[in-house]
Amino acid sequence: MAPSATTANHVEFDTNKSKVKSLQLDGNEDHDLVLRSFRVLIADVVQQFNGGHPGGAMGMAAIGVALWAYTMRYSPEHPDWFNRDRFVLSNGHTCLFQYTFLHLAGYKHMTMNQLKTYHSASEESLCPGHPEIEHTGIEVTTGPLGQGIANAVGLAMATKNLAATYNKPGYDVVSNTTWCMTGDACLQEGVGLEAISLAGHWKLNNLVLIFDNNNVTCDGSADIAVSEDINAKMAASGWNVIEIMDGSHDIQGIVAALKSAKESTDKPTFINCHTIIGVGSAVAGDAKAHGAAFGQEDVDNIHKINGFKAEDKFNVPEKVYNFFKTQGPSRGANLVQEWEDLKKDYCAEHSKLGLEFQARVKGKLPNNWEDFIPKDLPTSATATRKSAGLICNPLAQNIPNFMVGTADLSPSVYMAWPDKVDFQSPDLITVCGINGNYSGRYIHYGIREHAMAAIANGLAAFNPGTIVPVTSSFFMFYLYAAPGIRMGALQELQAIHIATHDSIGTGEDGPTHQPIEIAALYRAMPNLLYIRPSDSEETAGAFTVALKAKHNATIISTSRQNLPQNKESRRDAVKYGAYVLREKEDATVTIIGVGAEMCFAIEAAEQLAQDRVSARIVSFPCQRLFEQQTREYRRSTLQSNKTVAVVVEAYAANGWERYANASISMKTFGKSLPGKVAYEYFGFNGKVIAGKIQAYLEDLKQERIWKSEFVEL
Amino acid sequence: MAPSATTANHVEFDTNKSKVKSLQLDGNEDHDLVLRSFRVLIADVVQQFNGGHPGGAMGMAAIGVALWAYTMRYSPEHPDWFNRDRFVLSNGHTCLFQYTFLHLAGYKHMTMNQLKTYHSASEESLCPGHPEIEHTGIEVTTGPLGQGIANAVGLAMATKNLAATYNKPGYDVVSNTTWCMTGDACLQEGVGLEAISLAGHWKLNNLVLIFDNNNVTCDGSADIAVSEDINAKMAASGWNVIEIMDGSHDIQGIVAALKSAKESTDKPTFINCHTIIGVGSAVAGDAKAHGAAFGQEDVDNIHKINGFKAEDKFNVPEKVYNFFKTQGPSRGANLVQEWEDLKKDYCAEHSKLGLEFQARVKGKLPNNWEDFIPKDLPTSATATRKSAGLICNPLAQNIPNFMVGTADLSPSVYMAWPDKVDFQSPDLITVCGINGNYSGRYIHYGIREHAMAAIANGLAAFNPGTIVPVTSSFFMFYLYAAPGIRMGALQELQAIHIATHDSIGTGEDGPTHQPIEIAALYRAMPNLLYIRPSDSEETAGAFTVALKAKHNATIISTSRQNLPQNKESRRDAVKYGAYVLREKEDATVTIIGVGAEMCFAIEAAEQLAQDRVSARIVSFPCQRLFEQQTREYRRSTLQSNKTVAVVVEAYAANGWERYANASISMKTFGKSLPGKVAYEYFGFNGKVIAGKIQAYLEDLKQERIWKSEFVEL
Repeated sequence: MAPSATTANHVEFDTNKSKVKSLQLDGNEDHDLVLRSFRVLIADVVQQFNGGHPGGAMGMAAIGVALWAYTMRYSPEHPDWFNRDRFVLSNGHTCLFQYTFLHLAGYKHMTMNQLKTYHSASEESLCPGHPEIEHTGIEVTTGPLGQGIANAVGLAMATKNLAATYNKPGYDVVSNTTWCMTGDACLQEGVGLEAISLAGHWKLNNLVLIFDNNNVTCDGSADIAVSEDINAKMAASGWNVIEIMDGSHDIQGIVAALKSAKESTDKPTFINCHTIIGVGSAVAGDAKAHGAAFGQEDVDNIHKINGFKAEDKFNVPEKVYNFFKTQGPSRGANLVQEWEDLKKDYCAEHSKLGLEFQARVKGKLPNNWEDFIPKDLPTSATATRKSAGLICNPLAQNIPNFMVGTADLSPSVYMAWPDKVDFQSPDLITVCGINGNYSGRYIHYGIREHAMAAIANGLAAFNPGTIVPVTSSFFMFYLYAAPGIRMGALQELQAIHIATHDSIGTGEDGPTHQPIEIAALYRAMPNLLYIRPSDSEETAGAFTVALKAKHNATIISTSRQNLPQNKESRRDAVKYGAYVLREKEDATVTIIGVGAEMCFAIEAAEQLAQDRVSARIVSFPCQRLFEQQTREYRRSTLQSNKTVAVVVEAYAANGWERYANASISMKTFGKSLPGKVAYEYFGFNGKVIAGKIQAYLEDLKQERIWKSEFVEL
Repeated sequence: MAPSATTANHVEFDTNKSKVKSLQLDGNEDHDLVLRSFRVLIADVVQQFNGGHPGGAMGMAAIGVALWAYTMRYSPEHPDWFNRDRFVLSNGHTCLFQYTFLHLAGYKHMTMNQLKTYHSASEESLCPGHPEIEHTGIEVTTGPLGQGIANAVGLAMATKNLAATYNKPGYDVVSNTTWCMTGDACLQEGVGLEAISLAGHWKLNNLVLIFDNNNVTCDGSADIAVSEDINAKMAASGWNVIEIMDGSHDIQGIVAALKSAKESTDKPTFINCHTIIGVGSAVAGDAKAHGAAFGQEDVDNIHKINGFKAEDKFNVPEKVYNFFKTQGPSRGANLVQEWEDLKKDYCAEHSKLGLEFQARVKGKLPNNWEDFIPKDLPTSATATRKSAGLICNPLAQNIPNFMVGTADLSPSVYMAWPDKVDFQSPDLITVCGINGNYSGRYIHYGIREHAMAAIANGLAAFNPGTIVPVTSSFFMFYLYAAPGIRMGALQELQAIHIATHDSIGTGEDGPTHQPIEIAALYRAMPNLLYIRPSDSEETAGAFTVALKAKHNATIISTSRQNLPQNKESRRDAVKYGAYVLREKEDATVTIIGVGAEMCFAIEAAEQLAQDRVSARIVSFPCQRLFEQQTREYRRSTLQSNKTVAVVVEAYAANGWERYANASISMKTFGKSLPGKVAYEYFGFNGKVIAGKIQAYLEDLKQERIWKSEFVEL
């Protein structure tokens, strides 16, 4: 990768160095000792369990010193301080880097014994194989590559938005910086590239992305799979670019770069740090240093060349701890007090805004948030995507916690409210006259669904509840977003995803846009509420559930086409996952209706009634919520001992077998036809369904099929 | 977007033009008539059904004329000619563009009546809402944005690989070019960016990407969500960049650019064509021109300003047809004959290679391909990822159809065979001494799983069977690849995906890497065989199934950890999806064992036997294959009327309810612990499982739980 952009700091980089066994430090004695101790410790920890990722952490040590000792604003005593700098390790497999710096910087929980639990069988380890948000000092869970960059973009946006909303002259109550480490991989992954493009567009000058450019991936030299000029590419994407030629040693150079990044630009900054993976080991600069222990012989040698005895395991000299005590942490404690004082004065001078700000800091919605959910929704046939807009718009308009965005489907998702202001760099107004600035809460993500989901996770992770991100797209493209949705669910981050065009009712766009199997993924995903309301009332219920679910991500799955409003529909019952929509004491059949296909379930029941078959109807918007109900409730809802249940949904049947004996469902991909015609084509028609159910009942009676055998009718 | 790179053709571009109602043509009378007729026809077709995407097709008309009349090598009479140029419409929603040029260029099936079926209720329409591979003249199905670029990269790679393998001096039997259209969206999507990076790296100079730069997306001006210098970004990514300032009119300039792209560079070429969406309509240059009909009044006006009467619907003057007859198609017919003659001479002079080439053209594997699947596999405990390597390596080594790749996990996936040659630009040898050239069949995709899957689709789509792409990564990252896997399944393209680390046995990497819910997606996906073998023999069976499944994509899901070889295991039974591994006439319980957790199923059965509970065991590697068996076979395998079935799998249970009454499965995400410890932690242990099954049997007996109620034990 040829250097080609602004370089703040040039130390001649000798490519032959990538194989050197001895270390070239920056002349500062403290630095020398810290780096040596850090690298030896990493080698020891990984060797102990004979597994893990040592090379990256060792190569990045100088960057860590520059961050934790000289640059980042944080307090180990107040790890959740609201205005702390956020650090994201997008190359999460190098987690020992972060754990060890948390230890050195004085985070109490991160003891030497904890470090030793890395890769161990300890169920109580705070040092899992990738950083996990549950643990103190970790801002987001990372590991799936590229997403950390997008999380960092979300965190930086949160700062920008809160600062633009609450800061007043003399009162920068929100002013933190987001620092993100990346390896080669995150810069290859599409989600990383999408997020980079957005950060440049939004001119997030409070975001610094530090590239651990060791030019090594699992397969060997990164040159095997990438030939681009990364500096030029980042510059073309709207980033300020700084290059550090000896990033494994040049702490002073890195500190200068980090400070310049923070102070002197209106763009996000990319610091291209050339490093040596596994520096000091026998496999320095080689892929072998990436994901395995070095072996005892080499670890002994690493000790030796770093001035430690081979038998000195897990030995961090007191001087190293002292170095950090006299640098970062002491500054950190002061910072928190200064901020608390500032906040106090701010609240005194700006009392109304101060109250709101304090609520945001606590992550609270206004007490009356439920009042903003409309009581009266259309009683005429309405697409649930429109209902979702009617419900979400007043919430977003009135509740500052809401940040609502779309992956370029504003005209289809109805998420824009009157007089919305876009989240944009104020400069953009000169380009296209848009009504936007950083206080805006409507986000145009462009056509970047995966980054949208991962950025939403960053927004939610800034501080629990401070921001409630809402995303929107076609349900099909939540498959593009799936890895981000999964990470949100795993982290128990509250986010609401509005997914429209959720069945073959999507119509003419055809099978590429008709998501007949995507729900199976989300219904199986822990902590994720996939809610498919059948009309406006249930859509309102879905929003209430989603806003009360502080530890869940929710997908509200809506229709493109108009759906009739069912008079028995109950918004308050959505929280049970399923409920009896229409009871019949003498029923032999339970028809389970779901979402946009509820209308066919009702038609079929009415047709069956004409044919003297008594059918009851259950509305079933959310499997996961239903599973949380008592056995008693589930039995009384399904009546599976008294009736045969048939589910009606234009999806693959997978998963419905738990509740139904048979399905009217999709066995193939869909087809490009107008929505109504597509439904007809695939047999979604009350009369056809009723006929199939009657034939099925006859098959059961004749014992051609057993009730225990699930069948797709 | 400021122009910044090499520009082959500059016509002064007046930004005010984006709103002009009249057309500025290039002075050529034929061109003038063709463009006018084309645009009027598009407006008519979309107006007829009052829906669809007219604006893009109208704006791109000049590009279409340059391609179909002057540049592309094809023959309408031989639409499947092996050496034809490939055209990919990555912005698939503009499909009317392609359908209409197929019509004008003389593809017999694409009649005017067919064009009129666009967006209609016709089940036999050849003009669905997005291009579909089933239909003549369509190379790949597109619509989900960004993927078309990756498909085009795969198609161009196929050409490079076949040319390097078969061409001889004087005999360029494979020499086609791949042309790909893209809009703004595909250049925002991560998968597009991943593919662009790879095309630059591989120096695919037979690939031309044409950017319909109308600067409009659904949300309005593209400037709302993108600020980058696209030309500089593409140049930094290793592309040759040409800019056309008036791409809606300047046919001559576009032709010059296309020809120069084909002839004068060692890089792929990006042609940045500034166009006007909906040119000539009242909403020209506006997002409103994107996805809706113009309304009759405007359509009448479009007729008028283009010199047609308002009442002249679907009127293409004979001169327009003649223009195409005297340009492209006539050249096309000659080309096919020339190629057939060349091939004949080639086969005469290079008889051995000629035979092989002819087999490849027919898409045939060698007749003896099954012989390359090893008969003897390890009888000791072996990870199925290693077994997959032992099976795939000799296939790949001996069968030229195989192109095997990995998303940077060569050390983990075991897909590299001895003396493999990498697919690389021969220039790369000078950078990192890699053993690679275009005839290589091992592909380093880098950390780009989504592009990997979509590129594999392109490789498979080149010609059915000519290339059998194999991809490999961790199963978790097939969630990143999911949209590409889906498109492969939808298109019935044969591809084999090797997904290792497929359960919590993955261990220390933790829940971010433990795919406990991803199988639910793939088991629900039509045309996709998700096969989870429990040992080496079943892995061999999985490969046989995958290679015989000419119209399916297959995921072979393998373990990181060693698995015992089961003596009753049957490779030939994998094709049934499930089979009885261990029968017991007096069984009360059927334990369904799956993949890496089969060992726990067997342990549990043995424990139960000690406790005098008779349990039979079913191995169940593939649900979709089992569903294809007769009811008789399914009943005899499951014995659900005689036994209670419990499935043992460390995944979410969703979908198993069809075959089992209860599960030993995952209710949450996993945990970072060594693999064996993780299994213990979540109760995967023969003794624990046996105890749970006994308690369950007691619950059934006491009628605390009904057999019809699926329970997660």
